[in-house]
Amino acid sequence: MNGAGNLMDFLDEPFPDVGTYEDFHTIDWLREKSRDTDRHRKITSKSKESMWELIKSLLDAWSGWVVMLLIGLLSGTLAGVIDLAVDWMTDLKEGVCLSAFWYSHEQCCWTSNETTFDDRDKCPQWQTWAELMTGHAEGGGAYVLNYFLYVLWALLFSFLAVSLVRVFAPYACGSGIPEIKTILSGFIIRGYLGKWTLLIKTVTLVLAVSSGLSLGKEGPLVHVACCCGNLFCSLFSKYSKNEGKRREVLSAAAAAGVSVAFGAPIGGVLFSLEEVSYYFPLKTLWRSFFAALVAAFTLRAINPFGNSRLVLFYVEYHTPWYMTTQLGKYPVLEVIAVTAITAVLAFPNPYTRRSTSELISELFNDCGALESSQLCDYVNNPNMSRPVDDIPDRPAGPGVYNALWQLALALVFKIVITIFTFGMKIPSGLFIPSMAVGAIAGRIVGIAVEQMAYHHHDWIIFKNWCRPGADCVTPGLYAMVGAAACLGGVTRMTVSLVVIMFELTGGLEYIVPLMAAAVTSKWVADAFGKEGIYESHIQLNGYPYLDVRDEFTHRTLATDVMRPRRNDPPLAVLTQDSTTVEDAEALIKDTDYSGFPVVVSRESERLIGFVQRRDLTLAIKTARQKQDGVVSSSMVYFTEDAQQLPASDPQPLKLRRILNLSPFTVTDHTPMETVVDIFRKLGLRQCLVTRSGRLLGIITKKDVLRHMAQMMNQDPESIMFN
Amino acid sequence: MNGAGNLMDFLDEPFPDVGTYEDFHTIDWLREKSRDTDRHRKITSKSKESMWELIKSLLDAWSGWVVMLLIGLLSGTLAGVIDLAVDWMTDLKEGVCLSAFWYSHEQCCWTSNETTFDDRDKCPQWQTWAELMTGHAEGGGAYVLNYFLYVLWALLFSFLAVSLVRVFAPYACGSGIPEIKTILSGFIIRGYLGKWTLLIKTVTLVLAVSSGLSLGKEGPLVHVACCCGNLFCSLFSKYSKNEGKRREVLSAAAAAGVSVAFGAPIGGVLFSLEEVSYYFPLKTLWRSFFAALVAAFTLRAINPFGNSRLVLFYVEYHTPWYMTTQLGKYPVLEVIAVTAITAVLAFPNPYTRRSTSELISELFNDCGALESSQLCDYVNNPNMSRPVDDIPDRPAGPGVYNALWQLALALVFKIVITIFTFGMKIPSGLFIPSMAVGAIAGRIVGIAVEQMAYHHHDWIIFKNWCRPGADCVTPGLYAMVGAAACLGGVTRMTVSLVVIMFELTGGLEYIVPLMAAAVTSKWVADAFGKEGIYESHIQLNGYPYLDVRDEFTHRTLATDVMRPRRNDPPLAVLTQDSTTVEDAEALIKDTDYSGFPVVVSRESERLIGFVQRRDLTLAIKTARQKQDGVVSSSMVYFTEDAQQLPASDPQPLKLRRILNLSPFTVTDHTPMETVVDIFRKLGLRQCLVTRSGRLLGIITKKDVLRHMAQMMNQDPESIMFN
Repeated sequence: MNGAGNLMDFLDEPFPDVGTYEDFHTIDWLREKSRDTDRHRKITSKSKESMWELIKSLLDAWSGWVVMLLIGLLSGTLAGVIDLAVDWMTDLKEGVCLSAFWYSHEQCCWTSNETTFDDRDKCPQWQTWAELMTGHAEGGGAYVLNYFLYVLWALLFSFLAVSLVRVFAPYACGSGIPEIKTILSGFIIRGYLGKWTLLIKTVTLVLAVSSGLSLGKEGPLVHVACCCGNLFCSLFSKYSKNEGKRREVLSAAAAAGVSVAFGAPIGGVLFSLEEVSYYFPLKTLWRSFFAALVAAFTLRAINPFGNSRLVLFYVEYHTPWYMTTQLGKYPVLEVIAVTAITAVLAFPNPYTRRSTSELISELFNDCGALESSQLCDYVNNPNMSRPVDDIPDRPAGPGVYNALWQLALALVFKIVITIFTFGMKIPSGLFIPSMAVGAIAGRIVGIAVEQMAYHHHDWIIFKNWCRPGADCVTPGLYAMVGAAACLGGVTRMTVSLVVIMFELTGGLEYIVPLMAAAVTSKWVADAFGKEGIYESHIQLNGYPYLDVRDEFTHRTLATDVMRPRRNDPPLAVLTQDSTTVEDAEALIKDTDYSGFPVVVSRESERLIGFVQRRDLTLAIKTARQKQDGVVSSSMVYFTEDAQQLPASDPQPLKLRRILNLSPFTVTDHTPMETVVDIFRKLGLRQCLVTRSGRLLGIITKKDVLRHMAQMMNQDPESIMFN
Repeated sequence: MNGAGNLMDFLDEPFPDVGTYEDFHTIDWLREKSRDTDRHRKITSKSKESMWELIKSLLDAWSGWVVMLLIGLLSGTLAGVIDLAVDWMTDLKEGVCLSAFWYSHEQCCWTSNETTFDDRDKCPQWQTWAELMTGHAEGGGAYVLNYFLYVLWALLFSFLAVSLVRVFAPYACGSGIPEIKTILSGFIIRGYLGKWTLLIKTVTLVLAVSSGLSLGKEGPLVHVACCCGNLFCSLFSKYSKNEGKRREVLSAAAAAGVSVAFGAPIGGVLFSLEEVSYYFPLKTLWRSFFAALVAAFTLRAINPFGNSRLVLFYVEYHTPWYMTTQLGKYPVLEVIAVTAITAVLAFPNPYTRRSTSELISELFNDCGALESSQLCDYVNNPNMSRPVDDIPDRPAGPGVYNALWQLALALVFKIVITIFTFGMKIPSGLFIPSMAVGAIAGRIVGIAVEQMAYHHHDWIIFKNWCRPGADCVTPGLYAMVGAAACLGGVTRMTVSLVVIMFELTGGLEYIVPLMAAAVTSKWVADAFGKEGIYESHIQLNGYPYLDVRDEFTHRTLATDVMRPRRNDPPLAVLTQDSTTVEDAEALIKDTDYSGFPVVVSRESERLIGFVQRRDLTLAIKTARQKQDGVVSSSMVYFTEDAQQLPASDPQPLKLRRILNLSPFTVTDHTPMETVVDIFRKLGLRQCLVTRSGRLLGIITKKDVLRHMAQMMNQDPESIMFN
């Protein structure tokens, strides 16, 4: 850390790329933080020199807020555009607006003056494809033609989506949240948040959602927002040159993403805090809050319907677990096949044909007296003269029983089809789909309880709280609680789940049942395994993610984990004043370690610092090119003052400036539990192990992860990257 | 850490109190965590032995949730009882219920059949004192008598409160939040969360709030809930014997406290996370969530009015800053004087006489057509035939102007009187009082804007968004935003503030203005100084609190902060095998350090471990009493195997088991920025400084805090405790 600091001062970035990281490597949080402090100090001390420097330092201080503003504006705008495009393209599968083809069904009938609220679905300007082609709106032929074109459009959209992802941006597939979690924990995946990913993910997200596949847009929107964050980081060297600071911006961008995905700014901040982020200081909390606010505001300004909540949901489904199929080897074929099955099976059932957001909205709603939905076909009391708000429980009519069957089928269909949908190579999210499954199940249970309470109000369980003629069971509430429970079981969110749910529904009074659902679903799900879906995904991909939730309670010590092991060759070290350039080059060539400890001498083994492989390679290369007299037999000095050498000796190479003088050390007796804690909390890449001041070995983040996997009886080789 | 671990195994708590802390000392988080893991491992391995051990281990695993349940139940119950008692005693100052003296005004008239909603204030059963004594309800004499008795009751209540606090539990005064923050950060204040404090704080809180003083009950309720948490910790050795685990429970208890103070469970969890807690793992988040849920549920079950929100507010005021008066030396006199002034000045103004919760409630409300409040005395449009929901802006009537004057006076009065109220030796909170000040200011601004918009709707600022005859300004919303802004400025909360505000008001649609207010007030307040009121309080009291928000950006190194300094005597160390019992005792006697490093020898200075002063003292004392042959000239061995000694030598004392073999070390070149980070994130008490494996010095938490104070040009001597 200090080494990097000294470097800046003495030589002002002498070698390009010193202090940067390779792809698929882990960053050193402490070092990044230290580098930023150095930069900050430099600007502060310069700011006293001139007016211009003062202005520059003020701009630097405010650049964080500016980046947040830009992220909020862009992600809000993109979310709004995606919403409008999905709306239009989803309706395009069914028909077209004659007055203006770029209007969605709702907009088309909205502009029609003759429409009243009740039959907003039917207006002359909006024609189904069958109507347009054959002139007949009804009848078997029209139904088949509509069905066929619906499937055809769906196939076209999904084919376009999977092809674009395949050709232009492979990183644009999936929800992106597991990778963002990994990136935020300090891992480098170049291009994952790049401009191409942003562009292709935005376009293919629209296509994938519009195709009616069993997937959601919320996770991908978080990815899109993080791409925006990364884009704006490149405008300010404060963020583009410091991987630690960049991750602070990305945490806030994730909050903005959830904010626009649900119209839930507070939920977004909490999601980023509870689910996604790794290092989340209070400063980032405030900035996330601001970014989420701006994003929600922008989306609201763009949203042409003005109703900011459920209108944000579109065609989305969900899966609670993973499966691989043989089809996985042929991603395009897989997508086409799954789309075809989805479209063919979804069309006939009214609850799967419509968009999931509309479905959830209907399932959440309580039946008013004027409700025309099939779900609200109750037998009304003839004595009830006028519609009132507080309708007592009523017996179900034939429509309700019919709806129950269709809902049950829809539930089975969704669970099965989403098993095959998830993991396909197109953008796909998780949130709303889980909620749909939960909401269907909840509504079915709700109606069942309601009818039991009506017909058997003398049963003990109903006796005390449900007098006959009272409104004591609200099936819509069961649906809402079911949705929360299902989403909670999949992601293991608690606080952010409840906040998102009530920001979505406005149901602040139901906070207690929602919390109870969140806690219960967490307990039940944890009994099957502690990992939420994102952690499972991270583990499947072998990312080096050190989860803060896993408790490490084993009794191992640092000495059991450190390398070299008993029969390994000795630790590769450099000495402070007895290594030649040749030795150093041989060490670099023979090993692939990402850094080397520097000791006083091989005999004393007293540690004086740590040098990064990348920095050492660059320093030697540059010195060989630019510095006269540096040859293979030159001595490499890490000491403060080089000894006086005979004139005949070649020019020595002084490398103290790339030496980290404050490497992190623990003793060999330190319990691994403490070591894990240190790696987690300080975001280390490696840690040296000493005993009575002697260097014994080294523990890297990968060693820690492997050891943890081993202790949990998992395959330690599943940890793939560094 | 490991030392403590070994100790448990080999000797099963050989000396009483080994591993505990002294009063006003800081705990070592890593050590506590390690001790808990040892305990956990022991239980897990035992659980395979017998059924009974298995049940015990299951009970242990669930004890966390059981404690949460108990905390939720007790704190919810206490909050409910306090609410009812305050309600009754506040009304007792004005009169009494004839049908049952234990009814409050509202309950009294509630049970009266003749009452309609409009004149719920007047029912024959409720009589003012003047009515009861003289038979006259109206007239100057009755007014003066009521006034006199109002002041008398107030004085009686506040006298009782201050006396009880003084005599029985001095820790029960104030809001308690700064101390709880300090305790949660790892400081020990014995008795602060004890049973007596719980009892006295509950009783005196009722008295203080009922007396009508300018103070609130929310902060004290957090203190009460934490006392409950501490009480239940003592039921389980898992929590009572481990200061780290105890603090996890206390964090959750703080969430339960806010949950019942506002009826805002989510807000409570976020408050605990953002404002109070220091170490807040996800597990604690889930448990806090559960405790807050149970507490809110219990309170709702007790609450006799059924309306769970604003009814929770009672007589509370606020101050945004501190002052000390000469009266401070005479706490009882001070309380009596301030109560007298408050009561005398508050009675005549209708906005200060009523309870603050009612005031806030009225200020937040929009004026409906039927509203009888003075604030809603608008000139109605005679053409408007029937009351509608959406009333256009109207010109203000004389009542509104009158109310404006009274509100302005109330604002000045509250700000001034609370300056003198705050810091008195009675329980006093901050939340609702700040909101009242903000709400008054907001409502005044709101009415002003409304009238401007009505009379000058051709002005540019109003032109575009306010057509004549539209309802474009809602003064109630201004009051709500003002309240949020004022509370935010005082406490610097952001996310938890907004969540609490909308859990309080149900105003989910106003989330954007509320967020804007929170961000703006934070920016403005931060311009005057970064510290919120709790941090200021902590600093005033000199608690050793390492704030995670302060950024340390100075360029100092560990070598600049460590002791011994240049001209100090050398570091007090023990050697592993050349110290006698006498030497060790002399070292303990001559120094007051809380621990000593152990080195191989004074020449090599190689560090092998660290021993706590307390543990060393106890070990020597116990050995001298119980172990034969241990005399002053006995050698103390910290090595694994003691050397063979001549038979003539006295019995040696082996102390490896109290030696911490993994003390935390940094190099002398480590930037202080990193050291501060390590202290914060790992919760260390001390850290040893080495160079090339040689021990150079030590840095304690107090040294870090002193250095930080010095760097910020504050008095380093303001850090008082260890």
